[in-house]
Amino acid sequence: MSWFEDSIMARKAIARGEARAEASLTEAQQGRYHYVYSAAIPPALTIDPGTVVTCETHDAFEGAITHETDKPTEKLNFPFLNPQNGPIRVNGAEKGDTIAVHIDSIVPRGPQPRGTTVIMPEFGGLVPTADTALLTAPLPERVRKLHVTEDGTVWNDRVTLPYEPFIGTIGTAPQIEAISSLVPDYYGGNMDLPDVAPGAVVYLPVQAEGGFLFLGDCHAAQGDGELCGVAIEHPTVTTVRVDLIKGWTIKAPRLENERFYMTIGSSRPMEDAARGAYRELIRWMAADFGFDEIDAYMLLTQCGRIRLGNMVDPKYTVGASVLKSIVGIAQ
Amino acid sequence: MSWFEDSIMARKAIARGEARAEASLTEAQQGRYHYVYSAAIPPALTIDPGTVVTCETHDAFEGAITHETDKPTEKLNFPFLNPQNGPIRVNGAEKGDTIAVHIDSIVPRGPQPRGTTVIMPEFGGLVPTADTALLTAPLPERVRKLHVTEDGTVWNDRVTLPYEPFIGTIGTAPQIEAISSLVPDYYGGNMDLPDVAPGAVVYLPVQAEGGFLFLGDCHAAQGDGELCGVAIEHPTVTTVRVDLIKGWTIKAPRLENERFYMTIGSSRPMEDAARGAYRELIRWMAADFGFDEIDAYMLLTQCGRIRLGNMVDPKYTVGASVLKSIVGIAQ
Amino acid sequence: MSWFEDSIMARKAIARGEARAEASLTEAQQGRYHYVYSAAIPPALTIDPGTVVTCETHDAFEGAITHETDKPTEKLNFPFLNPQNGPIRVNGAEKGDTIAVHIDSIVPRGPQPRGTTVIMPEFGGLVPTADTALLTAPLPERVRKLHVTEDGTVWNDRVTLPYEPFIGTIGTAPQIEAISSLVPDYYGGNMDLPDVAPGAVVYLPVQAEGGFLFLGDCHAAQGDGELCGVAIEHPTVTTVRVDLIKGWTIKAPRLENERFYMTIGSSRPMEDAARGAYRELIRWMAADFGFDEIDAYMLLTQCGRIRLGNMVDPKYTVGASVLKSIVGIAQ
Amino acid sequence: MSWFEDSIMARKAIARGEARAEASLTEAQQGRYHYVYSAAIPPALTIDPGTVVTCETHDAFEGAITHETDKPTEKLNFPFLNPQNGPIRVNGAEKGDTIAVHIDSIVPRGPQPRGTTVIMPEFGGLVPTADTALLTAPLPERVRKLHVTEDGTVWNDRVTLPYEPFIGTIGTAPQIEAISSLVPDYYGGNMDLPDVAPGAVVYLPVQAEGGFLFLGDCHAAQGDGELCGVAIEHPTVTTVRVDLIKGWTIKAPRLENERFYMTIGSSRPMEDAARGAYRELIRWMAADFGFDEIDAYMLLTQCGRIRLGNMVDPKYTVGASVLKSIVGIAQ
Repeated sequence: MSWFEDSIMARKAIARGEARAEASLTEAQQGRYHYVYSAAIPPALTIDPGTVVTCETHDAFEGAITHETDKPTEKLNFPFLNPQNGPIRVNGAEKGDTIAVHIDSIVPRGPQPRGTTVIMPEFGGLVPTADTALLTAPLPERVRKLHVTEDGTVWNDRVTLPYEPFIGTIGTAPQIEAISSLVPDYYGGNMDLPDVAPGAVVYLPVQAEGGFLFLGDCHAAQGDGELCGVAIEHPTVTTVRVDLIKGWTIKAPRLENERFYMTIGSSRPMEDAARGAYRELIRWMAADFGFDEIDAYMLLTQCGRIRLGNMVDPKYTVGASVLKSIVGIAQ
Repeated sequence: MSWFEDSIMARKAIARGEARAEASLTEAQQGRYHYVYSAAIPPALTIDPGTVVTCETHDAFEGAITHETDKPTEKLNFPFLNPQNGPIRVNGAEKGDTIAVHIDSIVPRGPQPRGTTVIMPEFGGLVPTADTALLTAPLPERVRKLHVTEDGTVWNDRVTLPYEPFIGTIGTAPQIEAISSLVPDYYGGNMDLPDVAPGAVVYLPVQAEGGFLFLGDCHAAQGDGELCGVAIEHPTVTTVRVDLIKGWTIKAPRLENERFYMTIGSSRPMEDAARGAYRELIRWMAADFGFDEIDAYMLLTQCGRIRLGNMVDPKYTVGASVLKSIVGIAQ
Repeated sequence: MSWFEDSIMARKAIARGEARAEASLTEAQQGRYHYVYSAAIPPALTIDPGTVVTCETHDAFEGAITHETDKPTEKLNFPFLNPQNGPIRVNGAEKGDTIAVHIDSIVPRGPQPRGTTVIMPEFGGLVPTADTALLTAPLPERVRKLHVTEDGTVWNDRVTLPYEPFIGTIGTAPQIEAISSLVPDYYGGNMDLPDVAPGAVVYLPVQAEGGFLFLGDCHAAQGDGELCGVAIEHPTVTTVRVDLIKGWTIKAPRLENERFYMTIGSSRPMEDAARGAYRELIRWMAADFGFDEIDAYMLLTQCGRIRLGNMVDPKYTVGASVLKSIVGIAQ
Repeated sequence: MSWFEDSIMARKAIARGEARAEASLTEAQQGRYHYVYSAAIPPALTIDPGTVVTCETHDAFEGAITHETDKPTEKLNFPFLNPQNGPIRVNGAEKGDTIAVHIDSIVPRGPQPRGTTVIMPEFGGLVPTADTALLTAPLPERVRKLHVTEDGTVWNDRVTLPYEPFIGTIGTAPQIEAISSLVPDYYGGNMDLPDVAPGAVVYLPVQAEGGFLFLGDCHAAQGDGELCGVAIEHPTVTTVRVDLIKGWTIKAPRLENERFYMTIGSSRPMEDAARGAYRELIRWMAADFGFDEIDAYMLLTQCGRIRLGNMVDPKYTVGASVLKSIVGIAQ
């Protein structure tokens, strides 16, 4: 018996986390990719809970950077960055429900060198930006084009990074806003959290009827914080199983995998992202694991785990988790 | 000769800051008020540069709080807060231009007590919020309904606050996003900066064709930081003169009045808002006042002024200013 | 009758704010200047409450920068910066008491050009530092030596800045720590707050027996935030009246002048400095002005004022104030 | 062959990381424990490089909390918290050198229940504090006394936490300051970083002649961030091997274990701690691992790891690490 049978998705979702139908969003089916998370965009696909959706995702630059001699400032056209597949309308989803997404697989696609990372001005964790607005001159632009396969990413003669793919940007639409896909927030979005990986289930709050699921921005590897702002971006075939949990209301994304439960906070400064994540985890432990809130606070002090997603986006993203071996299985 | 004749609006805008036409957005003309800043909303009004527009603004709660016994959590329906007049489409405005708004007057309207301020959970500068997410219990809700006239706001038997009205929320639409009117950012929005007052000119960057000007959320008085998150909110008749500066590109709102030039930054943490504002002021001094950038940096160290707008919104807002008596008049 | 007669110093301090004795700390009398705030340093002077003390202060660089061709990185020897007069032991001062310091006058001294400001690496509000640790190259070092008199500071042919002197660094010793004079905190220190000016009274919490008052780092002018990190530093003759308030316990520096009461917070990020200052002001209004705490919170939302001291020191400093015309006179 | 033979300690330190002498700091030998990190305190012990020192550490409350009915606010006497063993003077240590500390073992001592964790007012990551100064009422005080052995900490009937001990507070003395042992900074101190565990080597910068090593505050277990501010505090016998690396100058603590190299940053806001740690790691990779700085920046973007130490102390602590399997062995 797999852990998945005890997952919230398997126990609470309409289709019990099963694959009952199939659909796809190839480049051709997707047509125009999207740069905002919005419920005003006509769905690219409408599905029932329990549908496996196979998406051809673009890289975060929509393939615009093809050579190491390219200049990002010349090739990129802000705000048309981080193209997203979707929106996927989930039948029956209403405000207050939760969409559960099991990540089945992420496979690289497209011609080599298919991996891209860059340094560009006013973007990154250790350079001045529009927010941390300093006077010092930017670093020189630099582009790396990288050979990426399921065996890894060749960085140089010495270093090959393991292929540890995940979905950088995934979420539902806000109720009335249309927010750039560069932003992470309570509905998901550009969280850049490496735990959003094959085998995990992501839970996303429904704000608008139909949920309007978007995803894209898959990374072949990424360190904690996505330091220079650009992971190993690559186009993929990403397959997810989408289900719906009626009446389970969450305030921010949650994640579950074989080992732990996680809540995800996005905010600035970074301590506020950590606070948001930990507070939700405490409230979850009180609601579904039989803890008194203060006891959960004290216990997480001894065993909580923090994963830094990004320290470069308009909000920083932090996941707070606790082992299933400690807290048991959610009610 | 008034200082206005030397203003950037008078010297650079198409209508030279003159009132060449009139229009209005009464409650009836406005119809539905708006809760996002978006260029996708059909204009409530289309004007030529040089038009004086008289707006009937609602208070930030759209009048929903009428008695001191009201509970904000029962009366308010998030995210339908901070209703805005507009959008006002400005003919000829294109990305890279700047809309200049002279604030002619703000006059309170509506039945007494027309002023409202409240304490509500998860909102305010000295309580836990969705960002500064702590475990301590919220303060009790409290509502004050206040008698507001142009003579002031009666706080209690001892204290009457002078009527120092300003526009809490004003801005243009983002290029492709639709952002809640509760947010301040590079396009203006919910800055809650008391200098946005009658007599001042606000300069706003055009992101989308037509500019799409929104405004609302007028305050009868406000301290620096809008500490509990709710100033003395009141409905008004607000009259603004709207003009267009072609080809003058700014990255964030600017403001000019008789005494100073100001740049406005919105970010978190607060130091980043201050950095953004000061960096833009330095770059402005370099571009239009004949300073070398480092000299401007060193001089502002000695004479720059900071005004805190809000410390409660999703981004904090800070204005950085320098006296005209020190830097002279912009080229 | 001057406002001072109603001041807390005049009403609560042992010597009633009167000048009952005189003392001085000339360069010769001071001997070694100090770079930490510590109660372990033997007093340079011991006084009774009610003593007027005239101090010859050094500039923040102890006069080491004499020419515009000097390189700060070659002339300065970290951590031996920001030399302080004192410590001044105040007879009778015990933990829980408050030292009141009326600033009588600040007069520039020393040969011209006696004013100094500099750009140096890893220091300043708009450059990478040891805290905001970025990879971009520092700005070039630059030194300005400036002619400073009580008529002002000559910046260039066009600009003369008014002489608006204040004490950049003033405070008591921590109980058991010895903290660099570059740091501001709950005991005062390097606050760089322009309101600490002639005519004002500063209230400082006593942590260790004798209080151990230090002061130095006078500025001929400074903008809000002390943006590049170095105001117009200059040597002075600074005269202060020092008194003692028994049993009035404060958690952080306070200030009073003709117009307002102020509390001072130093922290990072900047919003925490503002929170600390405003919370203390609210608690003061509750303790000594007859307000209920929530009412004070709501009223300061409408009329509180924020002054940014520094945004460059190890902690940022913010003053929160309220007009005496609004809250009346402290009990 | 153990990894240790390739460690920096084994290759660069005077005693080559070997145990050449033994010394101890039992409670009796230590006598008075210390609450500041200072080079002005007479050494409790003077050693040559290569000495194994066995310390009887107190818990962070010096044993003052003995029952679950104790009230921390009544039992604790701020600032006399977090008692430290030491200072240990290391012969030959001069400013610019580095002290290497191999943590040999940590063993719990004292009568059961020897573990303590508490909730107390104005302290913790999810409550108002002196810095994040809010108006909401504190959580009720709570004390847990816990049975701790090398088999684990019994939290309740359901949960036993593994014994994963580490040194919460360890560092050298600042050059001229005396800083509370509650503070972490560039010299180490109260970092509360779980990687400072048996088997690791910690590198600490020497600021003052003799280095003046302090340590204490051992935790039986701790989650990332030490959320409520108090881990499972317990008294221990902690054994460390202390060595000296001449002429290897570091700006902040570093750590090495079998798997990775780590740099440690302490600052506020949390992103600044992360920036500081990552910048030092990049500079280290450039200095000792043959990387160009920008390449190191881009590579850490793909594989850097962040460990949050504390989010509760006066500065937050973050470790940034990179696997030895990726970067090789330091030159």
